[in-house]
Amino acid sequence: LSRQPEKIPAFKALVNEYFESIALPRQPGSLYDPIRYTLEGNGKRLRPVLVLLACEAVGGKVVAALPAAAAIELLHNFTLVHDDIMDRDDTRRGRPTVHRKWDSDVALLAGDGLVALAYQHLLKTDTPRLAQIARLFTDGIIELCEGQALDREFEQAAHVSMADYLAMISKKTARLLAISAGMGGMIGGGNERQVALLTEYAENLGIAFQIQDDLLDITVEQKVLGKDFGSDIKRHKRTYLVIHALEHGAATQQRHLREALGTPNLTTDEVLNVRKIFEETGALSSATRAVRDYIARSRSALDALAASAEVGGLQMLLDVVLKRNA
Amino acid sequence: LSRQPEKIPAFKALVNEYFESIALPRQPGSLYDPIRYTLEGNGKRLRPVLVLLACEAVGGKVVAALPAAAAIELLHNFTLVHDDIMDRDDTRRGRPTVHRKWDSDVALLAGDGLVALAYQHLLKTDTPRLAQIARLFTDGIIELCEGQALDREFEQAAHVSMADYLAMISKKTARLLAISAGMGGMIGGGNERQVALLTEYAENLGIAFQIQDDLLDITVEQKVLGKDFGSDIKRHKRTYLVIHALEHGAATQQRHLREALGTPNLTTDEVLNVRKIFEETGALSSATRAVRDYIARSRSALDALAASAEVGGLQMLLDVVLKRNA
Repeated sequence: LSRQPEKIPAFKALVNEYFESIALPRQPGSLYDPIRYTLEGNGKRLRPVLVLLACEAVGGKVVAALPAAAAIELLHNFTLVHDDIMDRDDTRRGRPTVHRKWDSDVALLAGDGLVALAYQHLLKTDTPRLAQIARLFTDGIIELCEGQALDREFEQAAHVSMADYLAMISKKTARLLAISAGMGGMIGGGNERQVALLTEYAENLGIAFQIQDDLLDITVEQKVLGKDFGSDIKRHKRTYLVIHALEHGAATQQRHLREALGTPNLTTDEVLNVRKIFEETGALSSATRAVRDYIARSRSALDALAASAEVGGLQMLLDVVLKRNA
Repeated sequence: LSRQPEKIPAFKALVNEYFESIALPRQPGSLYDPIRYTLEGNGKRLRPVLVLLACEAVGGKVVAALPAAAAIELLHNFTLVHDDIMDRDDTRRGRPTVHRKWDSDVALLAGDGLVALAYQHLLKTDTPRLAQIARLFTDGIIELCEGQALDREFEQAAHVSMADYLAMISKKTARLLAISAGMGGMIGGGNERQVALLTEYAENLGIAFQIQDDLLDITVEQKVLGKDFGSDIKRHKRTYLVIHALEHGAATQQRHLREALGTPNLTTDEVLNVRKIFEETGALSSATRAVRDYIARSRSALDALAASAEVGGLQMLLDVVLKRNA
């Protein structure tokens, strides 16, 4: 397998150049200033890079997938801006969120504008499969909305099963990666089986990514005393860890955890106690295994794809995601 | 010209039947319950009926335009739900707004879901011009967002010219009618000139509609003591009347109007004083003339279209709009 370590940064640069080439209008400033602000943030561009890698993997020209890649990033930014309003988050990628820098009305409208811009770029794609791609994109947005609704419902729910949780992150996190890979494959001219394998690769990568995210919230050492440490717990989010601990913990452990999840403004010590429950109930090790399992499924899809496609870049992306620590 | 007075209610019934036939999922309820609620409201269905009328006018089959008609109504409901959040409106069509019945987070997400559902139905349209129609639809959403941003910026602006105002309502109100007619014409197989005339008809109808709306806020007699009387003035909206009075009024009239627009919680007497300024500065009569002028332009487009299309239904729609009093 060919390994070209410079490919991911090179594709990220292509995406950034594309965004720089878009001449967004200056007026009305209350719409376009915040949109420009979200695009200037130093995002990882993980999803658009995935579109380009998937397109190239099946023999397509990367440049053909650029508008769709931009569309995916615009859509991703839409979800971030609107989710940040709902989650009352103050910072994003080290900068104030849109609703903090402006206000929630501006953020609401900027998010709406981002969706429309996403479609505008998607519909520039020169492909005979445009209608099919637009339908995939649209169904993806509906699932994103469903995932976000479920995530919020779970915060109030008495019981959330692991199956509920996996269905939720499949919609909220994995779907956008799955449609990124699927669309890239379609634009690249991939056949049905190739597109299905690309989707499977990205879907499993996305689930692994989210469980890893749940883990990072509580395991990254340098954050222990930082304000982001345990932010999921402080917000009473139902993560993989919480759900596993509530399903498998002893009655006392469950009670302690439920108490912590009902307490506003948890201290670092209380968060560390919750982490101890995650350790003792086996939630931490189960989550670690789950990440490994979903990554293995992702790799299997890639191995099957390797028979008919050039999967080096996609394997690298998987490694990049696995090695992240924030 | 053939006049079939039952056509508009019949088309409205078709749209309602289409919505009843959509089996929206039950779960997640926090997403689909508010979406269902917006669709059950007794809306006029003006825009989807326009899609169907335009399609039929150029010889197309009405049933072919139904998914696009539904898409326009879903999109319209999206703008209502999100605009109501930004405007802090409590009621809509005689019922609590979504963000009052639930909360603004639920309304935010329901609006996002409505956009995606709008595309989902639009993309069901069976036509070789689907990409073109989807681009028109998308550009329309961008203009809707721009119009809403301008409307909000105007509330804080020191000076808004009549040209600014007309550009704003062209985006915020007229564009959605224009794309309704344009899309209907395209789906019906209309040629370029027919689609252009349909668009011109609806665009001018839309501008007339908005100026009439500005007038109705302050002229409808039965509302004089009702809570909706003068709601634009109470919210310091820059309407046709305000802009005309500020451009043409004497210095004293301008000062009184500016004072009223800077006062929170205006009484009915104060609103009546503002109406007096609108009368004395000629703003009321100018607005009445403007409605007549834009309607005349709308009729001219229809007359030109009548050479190659059956415009009876579209003329009736124009009459319905003109005769409304709320």
